Amino acid sequence: MVLPPVKALVFDVFGTVVDWRTCVVREAERLAGGAGADVDWGSFADDWRREGYLAPIMEIVRGSRPYSDVEVLLGDVLGELLSRVSVDLDDRAAQELLSVWRRLEPWADAREGLERLRRDHVIAPLSNGSFALLTEMAKRAGLPWDCILSTELFGSYKPDPATYRGAARLLGVEPAEVMMVAAHGSDLRAAAAVGLRTAYVPRPAEWGPDAAPPAPPDPDFDVVAADFNELATALGREESRS
Amino acid sequence: MVLPPVKALVFDVFGTVVDWRTCVVREAERLAGGAGADVDWGSFADDWRREGYLAPIMEIVRGSRPYSDVEVLLGDVLGELLSRVSVDLDDRAAQELLSVWRRLEPWADAREGLERLRRDHVIAPLSNGSFALLTEMAKRAGLPWDCILSTELFGSYKPDPATYRGAARLLGVEPAEVMMVAAHGSDLRAAAAVGLRTAYVPRPAEWGPDAAPPAPPDPDFDVVAADFNELATALGREESRS
Repeated sequence: MVLPPVKALVFDVFGTVVDWRTCVVREAERLAGGAGADVDWGSFADDWRREGYLAPIMEIVRGSRPYSDVEVLLGDVLGELLSRVSVDLDDRAAQELLSVWRRLEPWADAREGLERLRRDHVIAPLSNGSFALLTEMAKRAGLPWDCILSTELFGSYKPDPATYRGAARLLGVEPAEVMMVAAHGSDLRAAAAVGLRTAYVPRPAEWGPDAAPPAPPDPDFDVVAADFNELATALGREESRS
Repeated sequence: MVLPPVKALVFDVFGTVVDWRTCVVREAERLAGGAGADVDWGSFADDWRREGYLAPIMEIVRGSRPYSDVEVLLGDVLGELLSRVSVDLDDRAAQELLSVWRRLEPWADAREGLERLRRDHVIAPLSNGSFALLTEMAKRAGLPWDCILSTELFGSYKPDPATYRGAARLLGVEPAEVMMVAAHGSDLRAAAAVGLRTAYVPRPAEWGPDAAPPAPPDPDFDVVAADFNELATALGREESRS
């Protein structure tokens, strides 16, 4: 079967484009000041990502929890996580810490790789971050998206199939003309299930220096690349062949 | 009453950012070739805009016609308009003519003015063009939007109040923190009715050299500017005052 050319690339953001853990750790250390001198902020960041994001989002996708904005979810657990490490931030500092998710910084290869990829493709995030969060992040971090796609536009979260289908529909292309780029196999498998192409870009540093290595790629991922520059090279090669 | 600062600017596109008439005329002349040597393509473009866009959109906003995509609306009338001027295009040429609405070019000041405006504000289209159309147009024309907002995201068209409210909601700001920029008073009045600020940028050449001059500004428009550079200067002045 000859597949149509890839017209658009959509990207997971947290972990795939931006290094959330390093940024959260740095901001928490800065805002907690002396009060958090002996806190393991890496574990704090991991817990925040798991309990304030991954867990509630899966509940929402399964239908066991009503939809709410990702910053509401992250904010809901913040007080509890801070008291678990015995750090007391005033409201203003807590709000500033919460806003770090809008100020995350890209992996070293991301901007250059995206600039290369956008020459021949429409590029957009397809993230569980809200539309406003992704817009602000892109502006601060200089991410050269052609448009912003947030799962908020579909009133759901990845890996709900409606989000991947919705992205293709808004871009005016067939699912097979869209490639999902992610550091997470679950995201890619959900995208593939509704017909999108897949590019796996593992990010071994996502969960910090002591984390287990990323899962090996599924044999049916379309492309595997070490970073966005390698992805641009791989897609260029594929297109010159076809 | 002290108004909050303007955080985001949203722009009407057809007529305000891009010169649809000149581009449609040029494409029609090119595609019709000798067959349309004696056709008044300026009138053809005006009729296409009125009958394939302005009229059906108002019917949809009033609820007397079901929603459909703007390129469907423009395509629906194209055959009739061509036969009215006795030009017969094959399907492929007609499709290419229809696609001119994705390939419209900006007024001479637009790119530079938008670059200036985006330094201190989030900038986005808020257009009745589809999300895919606006994304493709921006990429081709080099329009430096921070994100794409299409009324398609709200299942309606301007001047439905839901579209202006929806834009503020997706940007995560209050309506009074958003300024609508348009060459058309009706668009600005509808935006102001739900609390947006307004900037009137008349485009005297929109309907061609023989058209009546643009309407004078309403006295309650917040800013009136001759082009986007003047708008950037005016907003810079306002902010340095406050």
